[in-house]
Amino acid sequence: MRITGKRISESTIHRLSLYFRSLGILEKEGYVTVSSKDLAQREKLTPAQVRKDLSFFGQFGTRGLGYPVVELRQQIAEILGINRKWNVALIGIGNVGSALVSFKEFIRQGFIIKLIFDNDQRKIGSFNKGIEVHDVTNLRQMLNKHNIELVIIAVPASVAQRIVDEVVDAGVKALLSFAPTNLRVPSNVTMRTVNMAIEMEHLSFHLTNENLYYTA
Amino acid sequence: MRITGKRISESTIHRLSLYFRSLGILEKEGYVTVSSKDLAQREKLTPAQVRKDLSFFGQFGTRGLGYPVVELRQQIAEILGINRKWNVALIGIGNVGSALVSFKEFIRQGFIIKLIFDNDQRKIGSFNKGIEVHDVTNLRQMLNKHNIELVIIAVPASVAQRIVDEVVDAGVKALLSFAPTNLRVPSNVTMRTVNMAIEMEHLSFHLTNENLYYTA
Repeated sequence: MRITGKRISESTIHRLSLYFRSLGILEKEGYVTVSSKDLAQREKLTPAQVRKDLSFFGQFGTRGLGYPVVELRQQIAEILGINRKWNVALIGIGNVGSALVSFKEFIRQGFIIKLIFDNDQRKIGSFNKGIEVHDVTNLRQMLNKHNIELVIIAVPASVAQRIVDEVVDAGVKALLSFAPTNLRVPSNVTMRTVNMAIEMEHLSFHLTNENLYYTA
Repeated sequence: MRITGKRISESTIHRLSLYFRSLGILEKEGYVTVSSKDLAQREKLTPAQVRKDLSFFGQFGTRGLGYPVVELRQQIAEILGINRKWNVALIGIGNVGSALVSFKEFIRQGFIIKLIFDNDQRKIGSFNKGIEVHDVTNLRQMLNKHNIELVIIAVPASVAQRIVDEVVDAGVKALLSFAPTNLRVPSNVTMRTVNMAIEMEHLSFHLTNENLYYTA
């Protein structure tokens, strides 16, 4: 299914991920249908927001009966691209990288780490959860040979841009970065950044400015 | 310094964290002042956006001379609350938790993990990077005793809400969650969520819908 011709925002994509998870719980609990009101309550959203998000899927659900749980979950999986497997490479097997290799939700959602890279000679050739650690100097040819589609960057800030440039040169169009620095990619490449220190700074900001009016 | 009476958005807070990092690099590179144009270029923003964000600090910087690097960085640290140390507790010392304990940027920004909690008897009493792992059944009294101000949740989804409720009951007002589930906190508590699988789903969405028009 393609939802061509409609505009969909990053925050809608995010909510689709949340609906997908709630629908999985509803399915396990034995629900056959769910109303936009019930789904909204689970996500702390308005029913109107839920209906608007799900309208991207065209006419779906029946007034008074709600949305069919299994079918809607399958449709969202399709639109999110998690009804299939993706070949993923992880670059940098330090503390964060090691945690990611063990992260079971990646596998459940179809994100399969096929290759690990590092520049540490002591790590190269070793195995982590059954996946061999390769020399990062062979990055480009290995990414191509193994048809890697998504790359996770977990290297120090100082080398991150150079690695990102190499990954982009290899033709990879999707990157997730854990490097604590601002990175550049061309406009035809999607990069998401997880910066845990910046998340903490949001919290310390709020603790510091408790009486401050701010907008969401 | 308080910036009372003005409205500041979550995305402004995020950009302040980025400016803080860029100003640190500029300081190391020996810059005394920086123009809004130069700062904007480093963050891929417009100079107008930078000037607007920094206007929260009142009259700052001189037309034609730019912003004083060291002073501006110090002001941003103050507003973000990272000019001081925070007492942090980590709940759950699995793969993600272990990576976080080793995450050097937390310490650099003043987020000091004082306590670790787990429910696994084999882990309780052991030390991780010099920090003792405590029994999570003593959570509330320990959080109070050690004046914990921020809590990081790195427990399985199935127990996350119960732990969050206990942390909130203990009076903690700021939480960072890595649990892959939707969690509820009262409106006077700030919670940030890092969900790595959802970040990956943004990427697979874009790879799946490459030709789709979407809005930022």
